[in-house]
Amino acid sequence: MSELKNDRFLRALANEPVDITPVWMMRQAGRYLPEYKATRAEAGSFMDLCRNAELACEVTLQPLRRFPLDAAILFSDILTVPDAMGLGLYFAEGEGPNFERPVRTAADVDKLFVPDPEGELQYVMNAVRTIRRELNGDVPLIGFAGSPWTLATYMVEGKSSKDYAITKAMLYSDPKLLHKILDVTARSVTSYLNAQIAAGAQTVMIFDSWGGALSHDAYKEFSLQYMQQIVDGLTRENDGRKVPVILFTKGGGLWLDAMAETGCDGLGLDWTVDIGNARAQVGDKVALQGNMDPSLLYGTPERIREEVATILSRYGKGSGHVFNLGHGIHQHVSPENAGVFVDAVHELSKQYH
Amino acid sequence: MSELKNDRFLRALANEPVDITPVWMMRQAGRYLPEYKATRAEAGSFMDLCRNAELACEVTLQPLRRFPLDAAILFSDILTVPDAMGLGLYFAEGEGPNFERPVRTAADVDKLFVPDPEGELQYVMNAVRTIRRELNGDVPLIGFAGSPWTLATYMVEGKSSKDYAITKAMLYSDPKLLHKILDVTARSVTSYLNAQIAAGAQTVMIFDSWGGALSHDAYKEFSLQYMQQIVDGLTRENDGRKVPVILFTKGGGLWLDAMAETGCDGLGLDWTVDIGNARAQVGDKVALQGNMDPSLLYGTPERIREEVATILSRYGKGSGHVFNLGHGIHQHVSPENAGVFVDAVHELSKQYH
Repeated sequence: MSELKNDRFLRALANEPVDITPVWMMRQAGRYLPEYKATRAEAGSFMDLCRNAELACEVTLQPLRRFPLDAAILFSDILTVPDAMGLGLYFAEGEGPNFERPVRTAADVDKLFVPDPEGELQYVMNAVRTIRRELNGDVPLIGFAGSPWTLATYMVEGKSSKDYAITKAMLYSDPKLLHKILDVTARSVTSYLNAQIAAGAQTVMIFDSWGGALSHDAYKEFSLQYMQQIVDGLTRENDGRKVPVILFTKGGGLWLDAMAETGCDGLGLDWTVDIGNARAQVGDKVALQGNMDPSLLYGTPERIREEVATILSRYGKGSGHVFNLGHGIHQHVSPENAGVFVDAVHELSKQYH
Repeated sequence: MSELKNDRFLRALANEPVDITPVWMMRQAGRYLPEYKATRAEAGSFMDLCRNAELACEVTLQPLRRFPLDAAILFSDILTVPDAMGLGLYFAEGEGPNFERPVRTAADVDKLFVPDPEGELQYVMNAVRTIRRELNGDVPLIGFAGSPWTLATYMVEGKSSKDYAITKAMLYSDPKLLHKILDVTARSVTSYLNAQIAAGAQTVMIFDSWGGALSHDAYKEFSLQYMQQIVDGLTRENDGRKVPVILFTKGGGLWLDAMAETGCDGLGLDWTVDIGNARAQVGDKVALQGNMDPSLLYGTPERIREEVATILSRYGKGSGHVFNLGHGIHQHVSPENAGVFVDAVHELSKQYH
């Protein structure tokens, strides 16, 4: 594999000196870009796009052609794993994701299995290999997966949910059954992420999008415990370089201490957290990634630059910060404002290094 | 007005000794009760029920006939205030609330006004007077309103929203316009709550349901500042007794210090917060209300009792705790499990007083 030309992102995650603060955007390959929409239309459905390694590579690289981003992230979906478990993922028009066969009973749970990453999920590994080759060492490639809890909410509900009523009813009335789902899912995610690393992912991120819906005790038992299991089972080195792991629980700002104890390298922060407080709390253990409200990109260029400056100043001097949004970029944002954001991070962060 | 027979709730909010921990449930008058559904069917629409003082009183009292609750809460809706501002509230079948005339432009904002609580909103005051009379001093009556930020999200979006894109776009591109909306709304809520107090409300609670969607800085500027304005403008005494104010920002667990500084008497906590930590942090300034995950009521009676015991033990000895759910009770919960919850609080809390 070729040498990395820009390793700012990996250096920041390792708390090593950097020249400027690295930046990328969650969902940077997405619907706010007209070229993404064109490729998506060419591919067919969203999952057709995920399954086509050449086109998945194309959309992964599109934002990097526009903006001087410091990392690329695999274009895929967190639901590839439960789909590969045979649950029948489909996207109904105008709705979110759905599963044909939700997991509700002991019999449903018994049918779950750890999918072969180079079998049912080989299309993802092909995408990783293709992207890594095409990146040609420009910036590191981030692989990712959903957290077991987050995946379980979709598997049990069969779709997106507001209050996760069926999953939480299981959590409080039959916790053993939910633990079984979470365990097989954690083993699947571990194998899936290790395969991504073997295929070329240089960092992996675990998205716990719905961990913030849990109580403080339930979070530890039903979400964090399984992310810990994954962190413990990951291959942490590749090409002679450490492969960092980033955990991101949206709404998890109260639990940063516990998250930092898992041995992960970085924590994703949403915008409810003051990054200065977070650094004081856990900055000696982990790097921090975040955390501008994606809605700022609806603001004026001046307002965006002002917010970037505030976050940089709250974090303060030194490495250990990967700038990002606090959640995925919204589809109605203008690409120009995304560019203002990326440039502002690079330009305004010089003085902190 | 008659003497209060059970003032445990008011004593806990004042941090005065109590025999057992008082308990009530957010949305305790609601769809999980068959008798509520019957009265609602009799009334017609949801707003017809709110506008009928006798029937609003009836549903307010229904949960008190079933369970030994320590407080009653006015049956109404947070959107009565923007509706009275002329925005045209309606509920489409199977959807949440909608406004016919959302507030988007300077011209829209100029039309907003502080509604007369004994004019457009008199039906609410009539309900307060009727309920207070019918309660006959059994337990205190809680009045309530939505926070300006939470109301503004509905006023600007025109309906419920997932990411408040239009409101946040206004916040970041034209903050002055949003501040105008928030200011007139804060003045309206102050006048509305003072009228509820004059009509007989013995406590008032401000529901900031969507404050948790804001960044830590934006929360202070666009939500907390206006709740502070309301707290400062409230009549804090009635019938020779203090009228406590409770602030509840769902998802606001990171901001308890700032909330406690407003001079409110109690803070509502959602279930992401460890109530023991919250007490250590702000328990010398405010009482705490909460904070069991409402989904626990899908669990077994044993599991419900176990969770109540855990929360009581985390809070520890002494007054200053009003037990509640961390959000409204879900409609599909069995009334029997709600009863288990209420009884468990009373029975298991004796040892802490």
